[in-house]
Amino acid sequence: MKLFISPRAPNPRRVLMFIAEKGLQGIETEVVDLSRGEHRQAAFRARSPLAKVPALELDDGRTLGESRAICTYLEGLAPEPNLMGRAFAERAFIEMADRRVEFYLFGCIANWIRHCHPGLAPLEQPQFPDFGRSQGDKLREIARWLDGELEQQPFVAGSRFTIADITAFCAIEFARGLMRFQPGQEGMRHLQAWRDRIAARPSASA
Amino acid sequence: MKLFISPRAPNPRRVLMFIAEKGLQGIETEVVDLSRGEHRQAAFRARSPLAKVPALELDDGRTLGESRAICTYLEGLAPEPNLMGRAFAERAFIEMADRRVEFYLFGCIANWIRHCHPGLAPLEQPQFPDFGRSQGDKLREIARWLDGELEQQPFVAGSRFTIADITAFCAIEFARGLMRFQPGQEGMRHLQAWRDRIAARPSASA
Repeated sequence: MKLFISPRAPNPRRVLMFIAEKGLQGIETEVVDLSRGEHRQAAFRARSPLAKVPALELDDGRTLGESRAICTYLEGLAPEPNLMGRAFAERAFIEMADRRVEFYLFGCIANWIRHCHPGLAPLEQPQFPDFGRSQGDKLREIARWLDGELEQQPFVAGSRFTIADITAFCAIEFARGLMRFQPGQEGMRHLQAWRDRIAARPSASA
Repeated sequence: MKLFISPRAPNPRRVLMFIAEKGLQGIETEVVDLSRGEHRQAAFRARSPLAKVPALELDDGRTLGESRAICTYLEGLAPEPNLMGRAFAERAFIEMADRRVEFYLFGCIANWIRHCHPGLAPLEQPQFPDFGRSQGDKLREIARWLDGELEQQPFVAGSRFTIADITAFCAIEFARGLMRFQPGQEGMRHLQAWRDRIAARPSASA
């Protein structure tokens, strides 16, 4: 298998962190250079028609896209440690938590960065800074909700580490780097403490 | 079980269509009136902290949110007809297709409607019409890609009807009603023919 990634992009990081948590060895990686537009070139589009990274080339030649779908495949291939739930009810509740942090937390962060950060201008044209700034406000709302969740439970989906922690962590790290968002400095100490615990896991530097 | 829905909203419709395809009987429904802001009131937020519909109250008292997570639960409860894949590789490829139509097709439609349609102004404040219009252009790009997919295969995820058809259909119907988007009139005849085939299924009027 070969995983197509882009350095510093949060979605490839989610899959790399998932692979590290699984302890999966031997998955080759190949860099797609977004700044040179390699994701939009025909060679990559033949694998990933919507020009998205990450993408996982399987041993049978097919290419699987979309971070969470890639994780579903890897969870099937290497079921332990379990990161996405065992029985269907647990899988559903972990998916709920994962979608909440992906759609609302990560979604707001991605929109802010795409529309407000000058470094993203080559990738996002046109930028709509007023829209982007409104997403920064929504991000704080969602982050405060998550801070409340993490006051009551140690991990995003409940009592154990799951894929939802990976999604939320990669989102928060993206916001820390490009939005200077530091939950602790904005009074969200449970979110900050959780972030610091996750950052101490070996997979966080994958 | 009780499903909280809102008439005409596309996400509750996805779950209602999934339930109809499964032939599941006896799930009570309760309407949450978005126009009166009922989703933001404390009674509903106790079930759905981010004020989102649909939400499924389980028999054990817990409430499950997020359309696709609700479907994961219902698929576990009633495995046939299978709509989300059996072995993990099939589940992953269906999830990939489902996410592509949810994030890029439905996402662009929802952004256009939220930011450009006057009827959504009470729910989305402030609206950013320039941003919304840019999403209409992106929608056409994604819809043309999907039209190409449906030239080669009868359903969104391949050879059989899956959850990805439900997601894409509810998105296209939302756009047909509120954006006057008619794929056939814009040269996307495979997408239109697929839409017309799905519209003929009994579940489409669920």
